[in-house]
Amino acid sequence: MIAIRISELGRTTGVPVPTIKYYLREGLLPAGAATAPNQAEYSETHVQRLRLVRVLREVGGLGIEAIRNIVAALEDPSRSRHQVLGVAHRALSPFGPGEPTDALDEVDGLLRRLGWQIAPSAPDRHGLAQALTSLRELGYEVDADVFLPYAQAVEPLAAQEVGGLPDDAQAAVEHAVVGTVVYGAALTALRRLAQEHHSAQRRGETPRLP
Amino acid sequence: MIAIRISELGRTTGVPVPTIKYYLREGLLPAGAATAPNQAEYSETHVQRLRLVRVLREVGGLGIEAIRNIVAALEDPSRSRHQVLGVAHRALSPFGPGEPTDALDEVDGLLRRLGWQIAPSAPDRHGLAQALTSLRELGYEVDADVFLPYAQAVEPLAAQEVGGLPDDAQAAVEHAVVGTVVYGAALTALRRLAQEHHSAQRRGETPRLP
Repeated sequence: MIAIRISELGRTTGVPVPTIKYYLREGLLPAGAATAPNQAEYSETHVQRLRLVRVLREVGGLGIEAIRNIVAALEDPSRSRHQVLGVAHRALSPFGPGEPTDALDEVDGLLRRLGWQIAPSAPDRHGLAQALTSLRELGYEVDADVFLPYAQAVEPLAAQEVGGLPDDAQAAVEHAVVGTVVYGAALTALRRLAQEHHSAQRRGETPRLP
Repeated sequence: MIAIRISELGRTTGVPVPTIKYYLREGLLPAGAATAPNQAEYSETHVQRLRLVRVLREVGGLGIEAIRNIVAALEDPSRSRHQVLGVAHRALSPFGPGEPTDALDEVDGLLRRLGWQIAPSAPDRHGLAQALTSLRELGYEVDADVFLPYAQAVEPLAAQEVGGLPDDAQAAVEHAVVGTVVYGAALTALRRLAQEHHSAQRRGETPRLP
């Protein structure tokens, strides 16, 4: 175990020292080992945690409270792999628990037809219902089956992602969070790039990538 | 053309009148037709636009400036369908133009191998490079090919989405924005739900959906 000062922790991770102090106060980072009044030493664990917090903020755009929930799950050895995945999902989903609506019934019907095993507390059920309601308010005449090709596209990815999680619950939660945030951002970026490609093809563009 | 007061505009769309006034000041909504000092009438166009702005804010989480750029593209009849898709993508992508990096070279290599026609100005190239860099900083030994299954999963969706855009450029930009935002949110939600399903299956859970 290498012991380092807070200034070195900042240099190693590229996170400014005032930001590290803020994360310490907010409980996103465990306290260092006190070596003198107003002085503490930090370890490789802090380096790794700080990099995770930075990715969650910069790539995932998560707020302090969402990160705090994830960090609490990371430090709770009593949770199973399935439970920590649930904690990560609930921290990452922007959707709160909503009211039962017709749109939610339709979404649940789609999930049943897909044969997916989903907890009633999953916030993303409400997210899908909200997406369906939004489309209808904008005048698009669609039902929940409009999401079917999207579900079929992500299912093999999700199977591979979950299959690749380590057995250890704490390692699994970090993997799950990183995977959901970083590969989620990549998936969104790739979809827009693929749209650009197909739009360029339709108008007979020649490739322009350097 | 039905003419309505601002209060009715609020009731119809569920957007509070002070918020409508804020959108008018910020240029997200065109001014109504003045009928008297401090009084104006609004039309069906305003209703539709206001619903779009609400979806961009609530489902897409977009800021005022990103929405202003989209609205400007909506009102510029000189742009082609391909150009308005580009404007929508640049407004929606959280990634700014970045510095050239080794990770960016690797991402461009992947896009070339995929045969995708991508403009050098596409911000999502930098987004993918940032995702790759983040994974490496967190200790994952990956190269750009790790994104290949994600690219292959979204490509048929993107082809369908672009193929479904109306020919009219202004209708196309609204479709493209709504599609990118709302189906993007749906795709993210479905990926998490599919992960939950596969995680539940691995531990032999029985279905729990109501």
